[in-house]
Amino acid sequence: MECYLDNSATTRVFPEVADFMKKVMCEDYGNPSSMHRKGVDAENYVREAKEIFAGILKCESKNIYFTSGGTESDNLAIIGSAVANCRRGKHLITTAIEHPAVLNSMKYLEEQGYEVTYLPVDETGRIRLEDLQNALRDDTILVSIMHTNNEIGSLQPIREAAELIKEINPDTLFHVDAVQGFGKAEIYPKRWGIDLVSVSGHKIHGPKGTGVLYVGDGVKIRNISYGGGQQNNLRSGTENVPGIAGIAMAAKRLFDNLEEDRRKLYALKKSLIEGLREIPGTTINGLLPESPDGAGTAPHVISASFAGVRSEVVLHTLEDAGVYVSAGSACSSHKPQPSATLQAIGVEKPLLDSTIRFSLSVETTQEEIDHTLAVLREKLPVLQRYTRH
Amino acid sequence: MECYLDNSATTRVFPEVADFMKKVMCEDYGNPSSMHRKGVDAENYVREAKEIFAGILKCESKNIYFTSGGTESDNLAIIGSAVANCRRGKHLITTAIEHPAVLNSMKYLEEQGYEVTYLPVDETGRIRLEDLQNALRDDTILVSIMHTNNEIGSLQPIREAAELIKEINPDTLFHVDAVQGFGKAEIYPKRWGIDLVSVSGHKIHGPKGTGVLYVGDGVKIRNISYGGGQQNNLRSGTENVPGIAGIAMAAKRLFDNLEEDRRKLYALKKSLIEGLREIPGTTINGLLPESPDGAGTAPHVISASFAGVRSEVVLHTLEDAGVYVSAGSACSSHKPQPSATLQAIGVEKPLLDSTIRFSLSVETTQEEIDHTLAVLREKLPVLQRYTRH
Repeated sequence: MECYLDNSATTRVFPEVADFMKKVMCEDYGNPSSMHRKGVDAENYVREAKEIFAGILKCESKNIYFTSGGTESDNLAIIGSAVANCRRGKHLITTAIEHPAVLNSMKYLEEQGYEVTYLPVDETGRIRLEDLQNALRDDTILVSIMHTNNEIGSLQPIREAAELIKEINPDTLFHVDAVQGFGKAEIYPKRWGIDLVSVSGHKIHGPKGTGVLYVGDGVKIRNISYGGGQQNNLRSGTENVPGIAGIAMAAKRLFDNLEEDRRKLYALKKSLIEGLREIPGTTINGLLPESPDGAGTAPHVISASFAGVRSEVVLHTLEDAGVYVSAGSACSSHKPQPSATLQAIGVEKPLLDSTIRFSLSVETTQEEIDHTLAVLREKLPVLQRYTRH
Repeated sequence: MECYLDNSATTRVFPEVADFMKKVMCEDYGNPSSMHRKGVDAENYVREAKEIFAGILKCESKNIYFTSGGTESDNLAIIGSAVANCRRGKHLITTAIEHPAVLNSMKYLEEQGYEVTYLPVDETGRIRLEDLQNALRDDTILVSIMHTNNEIGSLQPIREAAELIKEINPDTLFHVDAVQGFGKAEIYPKRWGIDLVSVSGHKIHGPKGTGVLYVGDGVKIRNISYGGGQQNNLRSGTENVPGIAGIAMAAKRLFDNLEEDRRKLYALKKSLIEGLREIPGTTINGLLPESPDGAGTAPHVISASFAGVRSEVVLHTLEDAGVYVSAGSACSSHKPQPSATLQAIGVEKPLLDSTIRFSLSVETTQEEIDHTLAVLREKLPVLQRYTRH
């Protein structure tokens, strides 16, 4: 049995999305900048994709930009808006547990003379609003807070953060990295006071190499790449029309079934958590104290530490049984180092390297969860015994 | 009859490439950074794609980087190497007829305090080597010259330029934007002394949203995006595995048949040029005086000016007959302005806005050329008569 439980690393592309992309690649392959019909047809795919995202985010088509992925969306949002607004100030705020695409954009800006405040998180992986309030200054031009943490599934209070930011300083821009949260929960940036939102295609059963950046009305942002001036000169380069059509179709599929899928995912998550709890030496990370079944955290991410066994050993033991999981996050390529997120939420040192991330998708079944738990129940005691000697 | 003669704007994806990508998207959808088998499988696609490009360019796999397209490759090559080498100097050289992805990267660097020399071109669209020689200085850190011009198909003397640059200043980097030339001619950067080469997927029947950057051994270059450190930290972001597999398959297909395809394309080009010449008031732009049949210029691009008719009118007249061509280049999105390339080669002012680009591909047939010529022969005299009144 094959159980792909690494959906926060990447997801399978929905077959109907791949079929649609094939049609666009082979039949409607025009360049949206071309003036003839084939160009107009291609432009229509882009227009329709914008409308789909505008419908999901409850904004207008003109707020939607397409990028090559979450990393580019985060880079453009953070660097593009910091550079465009540097005359108003050079202070930025983010959290200690952001994705490297955010953290390393911030580090780049620090090299350029900007100052960045990194908010700590509590043991559930959430910032405290009073910390944000205390960090906000007159010269704070941008706050960037992720929607859903990719390693432990914590949900940040982004609505409350948006309200607070706009109350204290309406000119401060607010960016939300929604790469892990989009498709799992509603997000209405315009209504909530969020200025910039990043989305990635391959986390939502769309194609790799695609992303979206929502840019609110009147948000000052500068392009960070230079070329033919496509997409209102914010993002040059021939639009990836099949990819854009694909990410939009995948997003539509997810949001059309959002409530049902969320219920299903939370039930699977609960069942996985309950099964894991029965295995001696197991800790589930980042749960809310009031919701031991996983409510109040992302429906698809479960982080568990297995005392006395290295995560790589658990990973490969599961792999041998057809179960694919992650040791920490797969987003930092081949750089084994202690997870900043796990450290930030206070995971004890001996458990840092004994932690596994299970990440579900709408395609995950109860049978897969049962199989995974059966493998862990059988193998973990053996592995733990070996390790002790 | 449908005749797609706008292949310099974008090409149809080869159906076998789209099928292959669908398989990767739906079956081998892992993240190359994942430690389990699905990650390893994904990484293997990337490795194989690198080997294909290494074979074509006669270099090593480690010299190959994947990007989101020609624009990103050009940006990374130019800005990344300028920033990394700015201590040695701040002078750059390029030509007056580069693609906006090169020209606007240069303009950005000018804003940052760099100095750029723009080489003129002769009436065939080629730089003079003595101009390059005169422009090279001790503080010249980078020269960027395109392989094949996208509007008129002129071929630059890149081998001779490489020799000259390395002779005068071995530390000066040489970047070649091969977006229009790759797949139409051999290019061996390592052998020829070229340090950086840009390639785009959608110009070679591969997917949109994909590109390659060749980076020579020891070339100092800095990343221009920030994230998880993929691709040796030069280009962060989850690798677009299906896209990478697709661009490599398309490139292999083109280079496996290079000689035969070139012969075929030059024959089609010759036949189109001969037909166009018979139409009164027509000028073919950028041909070599010694080769009126189109030899010595790119096999797939023909630029023709039709006296007395606006290019948009010709374009839509052809479109009505199922023939898709371009008025100038499609790369500058919806910004109708006189073409810098046509001006640089001395096209007379009244003809600047009467110029059409025909661009062929390996899929173009003689029937399509014949049909196109028949439409032009029939319609142009009528259009010209209307315009006179």
